[in-house]
Amino acid sequence: MASCDYADDIIAEALDGLALTYPEHVSWHPESNVISRANRAVNKVGLVSGGGSGHEPLHAGLVGTGMLDAAVCGAVFASPKSEQIQAGTRIAHSGAGVLHIVKNYTGDVLNFEIAAELVSDDGIGLDTVIVDDDLASHGASDGPGRRGTAAVVIVEKICGALAESGADLATVAARGRDVVLRSRSLALALDACTHPGESRPAFELAADEVEFGIGIHGERGVSRIPFASADELVEQLTTPLAGELELERGQSVIAIINGLGGAHPLELAVIARQVHRLLDARGIVIARSLVGSYVTSLDMHGVSITLTVADDQLVTACDAPVRTPNLTR
Amino acid sequence: MASCDYADDIIAEALDGLALTYPEHVSWHPESNVISRANRAVNKVGLVSGGGSGHEPLHAGLVGTGMLDAAVCGAVFASPKSEQIQAGTRIAHSGAGVLHIVKNYTGDVLNFEIAAELVSDDGIGLDTVIVDDDLASHGASDGPGRRGTAAVVIVEKICGALAESGADLATVAARGRDVVLRSRSLALALDACTHPGESRPAFELAADEVEFGIGIHGERGVSRIPFASADELVEQLTTPLAGELELERGQSVIAIINGLGGAHPLELAVIARQVHRLLDARGIVIARSLVGSYVTSLDMHGVSITLTVADDQLVTACDAPVRTPNLTR
Repeated sequence: MASCDYADDIIAEALDGLALTYPEHVSWHPESNVISRANRAVNKVGLVSGGGSGHEPLHAGLVGTGMLDAAVCGAVFASPKSEQIQAGTRIAHSGAGVLHIVKNYTGDVLNFEIAAELVSDDGIGLDTVIVDDDLASHGASDGPGRRGTAAVVIVEKICGALAESGADLATVAARGRDVVLRSRSLALALDACTHPGESRPAFELAADEVEFGIGIHGERGVSRIPFASADELVEQLTTPLAGELELERGQSVIAIINGLGGAHPLELAVIARQVHRLLDARGIVIARSLVGSYVTSLDMHGVSITLTVADDQLVTACDAPVRTPNLTR
Repeated sequence: MASCDYADDIIAEALDGLALTYPEHVSWHPESNVISRANRAVNKVGLVSGGGSGHEPLHAGLVGTGMLDAAVCGAVFASPKSEQIQAGTRIAHSGAGVLHIVKNYTGDVLNFEIAAELVSDDGIGLDTVIVDDDLASHGASDGPGRRGTAAVVIVEKICGALAESGADLATVAARGRDVVLRSRSLALALDACTHPGESRPAFELAADEVEFGIGIHGERGVSRIPFASADELVEQLTTPLAGELELERGQSVIAIINGLGGAHPLELAVIARQVHRLLDARGIVIARSLVGSYVTSLDMHGVSITLTVADDQLVTACDAPVRTPNLTR
């Protein structure tokens, strides 16, 4: 990296701080802003993800045994450069090829594609899983399709468990794509995030308004709905997800109740309770869940819910051990 | 509990949600708002903490193997009632007595004292560790002394490891008191928290002001200082701590870089880096650290730093396994 702007400085300092805090899990590569596993794997499918920063702990905090081999960190809300991704891919390659796990945004997809071409000269076998779970952006005719949001954590967890168990690249990639098909997310916010260097939030909301169907970059949602109780708002997120996934009585799901940066653990726990109650009423079991702030949008006061239709192998993979800075379960 | 007000409803729903999310770790007792270990220990010193809610994941998220046996949860920023603490103490008692770990606030100390008297009739051996680590409230002549803040997490971790290893009540209590003596904390905030049901923050700050020496209940700090770079602000927290603890070259510490609710992981990582650099320049090693939001003050946008003078036994105890909802390291 030739020169750094202000936002790059923040990211570099934060990645340095992460590696100083968790030297047993991760190492920082300052020349590429890649966070890699401290103990490099041997002859294992390497998992690489990345994207713009501002979503922490995603992705750098999810590097370690059982999850990512490398996370490539762009500036805040900006795709990493293809040269960074190339560097991360080389670091992650330990003899069994590399899987790119990419959230579906134009810049990320393009730069990961360019990086894939760059590393093909190195003889590194490569495959890509595009994560596009955001139901709010489904069917938009003017964009690249559904956005990638918190389902990427489940993809990284499942693919990480498979790779750790010795599965080959084709198997890990196929299961990753299958997890994406099984997953949908929806989000809402009570307040927008404030971009670094800005003094005002990305959009303004009245106290009695909720932005529904938001993404993770401060973009506007698909509609503005009246403020309601937590239970009612959670129902407005959960019902469309259950419908889109065609959930039926007796099925089980993996759920992520995800804080977007400004959500308090008390709020997330109240929301988790309501998701349990709503799905229980439909005869659907939450087999495993994550409740916390895993995919943030800076300081946005909001929450996303992700549901993944489970099967026995997915549940087993969820229970495989992981040792990363921010996910150990 | 006879009747519940609005804040109690939130707490009960959140504790229900916590237990639904982590059934392998914790159980919720709705009659007392106690969170207990799912698998009750046998003939182990029981550890009980608690206090007002709004500080999550403290204390309910720190219940489980290797840490607390029970957390007693009051309303937001209000001490639990002595009857709740009595109930939690009975639940935590497995034959080897119970240790109360109490943050130093008048209401908490009083209600834990009353509960200790109530359970003495049950024949439960009981001891108490008062945690008073907040340097900002040191020497205040009109109050109960230094407030208890994030050092309580280290006390719970160290006492938890000792209790798990079979140490008796006197040993666990003595080590807990020793950890308190070795620990000091300082905090600052860029924005105050907003109490539930209120539309305005607990105090107002201009964009170029920082509240220094704040507590964890929205109370004002000891001074208002000019906004400065993260590195400069961290130095203003770290230098007084190092002085008060009389840290000398060659010593090592356990550190907590704690978000107060509205701090982003990027910010905490940048702060952690600077604490490493400042202590490194003094020849002091951070032997172990926690970086995250462990002791929050609702949505307060601030951070606290806690330093504990380490010795070999403390470092070993830090590495003992814990299995709780929100701390697994």
